[in-house]
Amino acid sequence: MYLTMNRFRVREGQEDAFETVWKSRDSHLKSVDGFVSFHLMKGPARDGIRLYASHTMWRDEAAFVAWTKSEAFRAAHAGAKSSSEMYDGPPELEMFDSVQALT
Amino acid sequence: MYLTMNRFRVREGQEDAFETVWKSRDSHLKSVDGFVSFHLMKGPARDGIRLYASHTMWRDEAAFVAWTKSEAFRAAHAGAKSSSEMYDGPPELEMFDSVQALT
Repeated sequence: MYLTMNRFRVREGQEDAFETVWKSRDSHLKSVDGFVSFHLMKGPARDGIRLYASHTMWRDEAAFVAWTKSEAFRAAHAGAKSSSEMYDGPPELEMFDSVQALT
Repeated sequence: MYLTMNRFRVREGQEDAFETVWKSRDSHLKSVDGFVSFHLMKGPARDGIRLYASHTMWRDEAAFVAWTKSEAFRAAHAGAKSSSEMYDGPPELEMFDSVQALT
């Protein structure tokens, strides 16, 4: 299993606006080969910043890489706007490989 | 869905030792009410430090909290050793609530 998490530092007071962006778009993910699951995750708040993370599970790294080169990826990000007012800095993408699993 | 991730900063060269600790212990998680899944995740390396994360999904926050107060939790952590040689600082625990899901 392969996990990609994009960490967003959202200013307090902007949480609803941030969540609305995600909930109002069509990610086109369900039709993508190798897609397993997506969650928008609400994390801890500290110093006026709320951590969110997009959390996407893939069959393997190759499935993720293929998606980033696909029309579905372009369509999903076509409406993405970077509002400087909403964020404290750019998002940070982290990739993880599962090395042990218990399910 | 509720996600707990404990982020470990492991010094390069200590990856095998770190993974062995996890793979050689019995977490007792499968018998815990509300437990969904566990993965040990290997993340990116930067500046001589490899990021790992324990990644545990729970039915809800209450299931996680109940586990931290249980005998299963004590048993799972009884053998935990903090080797200063293995880590660059203490682990950082982050909790996330799913606010949008696509599965």
